[in-house]
Amino acid sequence: MDTDAFRRLWNELEPIGRTEAGGYLRFSWTESDLRLRLWFQAQARLRGLRCEEDRNGNLYAWWDAEKEQVVDPDRPRPLDQLTARKPRREGAVLTGSHFDSVPHGGAYDGPLGIVSAFLAVDRLRAEDAQPKRPIGIAAFTEEEGGRFGVPCLGSRLMTGVIDSDRARALTDPDGVTLAQAMRDAGADPATLGPDPERLERLAAFIELHIEQGRALDGSESPVAVATAIWPHGRWRVTFTGEADHAGTTRLPDRRDPMLTFAFAVLAARKEARLAGGVATVGRVEVEPNATNAIASTVTAWLDARAPDEAVLGEILSGFESKVTERAGRDGTGVAIAPESETPIVEFDASLRDRIAALLGGAPVLPTAAGHDAGVLSAHVPTAMLFVRNPTGVSHAPGESASDEDCAAGVEALAAVLRELAC
Amino acid sequence: MDTDAFRRLWNELEPIGRTEAGGYLRFSWTESDLRLRLWFQAQARLRGLRCEEDRNGNLYAWWDAEKEQVVDPDRPRPLDQLTARKPRREGAVLTGSHFDSVPHGGAYDGPLGIVSAFLAVDRLRAEDAQPKRPIGIAAFTEEEGGRFGVPCLGSRLMTGVIDSDRARALTDPDGVTLAQAMRDAGADPATLGPDPERLERLAAFIELHIEQGRALDGSESPVAVATAIWPHGRWRVTFTGEADHAGTTRLPDRRDPMLTFAFAVLAARKEARLAGGVATVGRVEVEPNATNAIASTVTAWLDARAPDEAVLGEILSGFESKVTERAGRDGTGVAIAPESETPIVEFDASLRDRIAALLGGAPVLPTAAGHDAGVLSAHVPTAMLFVRNPTGVSHAPGESASDEDCAAGVEALAAVLRELAC
Repeated sequence: MDTDAFRRLWNELEPIGRTEAGGYLRFSWTESDLRLRLWFQAQARLRGLRCEEDRNGNLYAWWDAEKEQVVDPDRPRPLDQLTARKPRREGAVLTGSHFDSVPHGGAYDGPLGIVSAFLAVDRLRAEDAQPKRPIGIAAFTEEEGGRFGVPCLGSRLMTGVIDSDRARALTDPDGVTLAQAMRDAGADPATLGPDPERLERLAAFIELHIEQGRALDGSESPVAVATAIWPHGRWRVTFTGEADHAGTTRLPDRRDPMLTFAFAVLAARKEARLAGGVATVGRVEVEPNATNAIASTVTAWLDARAPDEAVLGEILSGFESKVTERAGRDGTGVAIAPESETPIVEFDASLRDRIAALLGGAPVLPTAAGHDAGVLSAHVPTAMLFVRNPTGVSHAPGESASDEDCAAGVEALAAVLRELAC
Repeated sequence: MDTDAFRRLWNELEPIGRTEAGGYLRFSWTESDLRLRLWFQAQARLRGLRCEEDRNGNLYAWWDAEKEQVVDPDRPRPLDQLTARKPRREGAVLTGSHFDSVPHGGAYDGPLGIVSAFLAVDRLRAEDAQPKRPIGIAAFTEEEGGRFGVPCLGSRLMTGVIDSDRARALTDPDGVTLAQAMRDAGADPATLGPDPERLERLAAFIELHIEQGRALDGSESPVAVATAIWPHGRWRVTFTGEADHAGTTRLPDRRDPMLTFAFAVLAARKEARLAGGVATVGRVEVEPNATNAIASTVTAWLDARAPDEAVLGEILSGFESKVTERAGRDGTGVAIAPESETPIVEFDASLRDRIAALLGGAPVLPTAAGHDAGVLSAHVPTAMLFVRNPTGVSHAPGESASDEDCAAGVEALAAVLRELAC
């Protein structure tokens, strides 16, 4: 794989939604998202791939099978061996990822999987490969939850994990609903909802993604295969008190939710450290947010993840009891509401082992990050490839991968598609 | 004083800038501010008062002296007795306050002083009083700093406490500069700056204000006279770390400024409690403010006040050393920058005692809240009247005063104007 070919295609995407500080604002159904969608359609058209958008706004570019599949008794279909689930002889092999970013995120998280998919198709065509199953490239909508708060929104809608009425009513920080944002972008929110027929047509989903961590730094292999996704969730924590004058209200008379919130930030970290998981408060909103007024409400989002569900539950219950006790002392209220909870995802073990072997013994790694692959894995044999990220930085502009490693990722993805679909 | 007369005038102002939740968004140079300015001009015109706007956007309605002042040797001018400063025989007596609110503030903080001033003029005219000095009603601009961050902006500009270039460059939360906001409102920011001639023409300034606290609750008097304003200040505290993925970044690898910020909130409260002052963090901004990203920057504003400057200094130095030490442990940066620092204001003692006696022995109280009266007191003999606030709530919609107490405030203000100017 030619690193120049990677760089040429990558350069086309790089300016879209980038801020002067180098981070990205690529939120679903915004102008930058619409530009990315147009780019996707243009790439599909250039390659003669059939483009479609599903009922949930997810995009696909299809390389249809060259001819009706003929079962060759001397060469069993690989997927039949790869999974204990019911074989889907006619099913497609789907790859891809997402375009959207967290606020001021990096360039690779998401788009690398889409760019690599187009280049893998180019690679297979250069060797005149003939797909015996359809090969699809997917761009899922709102994977990060960066605009409407629910991560993997496109794949959750498709699989029915989130109710379509609830999804339509989700609001962005400006109070715009998903339904309105879709209409403003020329899309139809009425069609949102589960899409079991589409899932049924898939034989496998392979998501290539930049590594989020530094496990491959110093490794011989620039590409790893995922074992599992840690169970994780987001909880909205609302601290309520009483707005009052910051100068004239005596300390004992205050019901200041900022104090309870501050305690909660430190408590989350401590509980996660003791239990062996991670917990983060990265998003906060304060009302009225005035320098000289005690806050009336502080809303914070807790992100917590752990190697298994028992540890995650331990973090949450410790957090809740400590914060509730503190709220009692502060005279404030606290309400904890889950926004998303994702159980552990163990990727298809036989598919994972087959891919690791195919790639010459690639390392296998768990990840603490959620992905559309995790959502789809409940319905479709699913695997993930990770491309080395030497700094380990993720969800920030410092995220990076070398062109050489990205090209190696394309080679690996092409090998997997060749094995599964050609 | 007729409570109905108070209620009628009060009702005219009440809807302007009020939200559905009952709080006020009255920010300088916004549409609601322009409506309040038009109301002021209409009230002046109705009473035949001469209206003017000074070079800093502060409004005045003047009841000019009926005739050239004649010094009657048998009746010395009261102000000559009231202050040890150089007498200003020709000087005007100014009263008034401000229209602007903190975000979602109450109705009384500011506007009560302006409404009461118009009604006090009505009261004096009803008894056919003849001013021997000009009586002015003032509406100062941006007292709360609710839009551009610097409190008492109109009086600070007038007295040269803030540089006019710095003021013009102040930005609101949307990034609009004061200069642009003034131009958008049809005002000229080029004229901003000190106005010593105008200050020189003032003999006294009397600000009537709703009480901020509950000292008068249960008192026999609905009106008090101010002794002093606690020294106070605002500091912008910037916590810097490194944005990264909330799931995949190991706890020991994090440089999370949210932790240092949370510690700082609790440290500010503790230092204030130990020293005998107050400290509040009511405003916070987080970058990138995403649920699944560790923050790169948390900016918080510390508001601290104390009975004297030594105690305030103690709170600040304790806060700074504790937070700096914690930042070292968190691997984060912390920078503390003053946005405004106001030394203790002791109001003119002889003027205060004279007014307290005139009002039949009204209570005298200190306040921890800043006011334009505090800024002007460095240049003009200044006094403040407080009208009872039974709940003590301030800077929030629950702020209240009874119509009877407001009418008593008008009576008291009329008595002071009569004594000083007629």
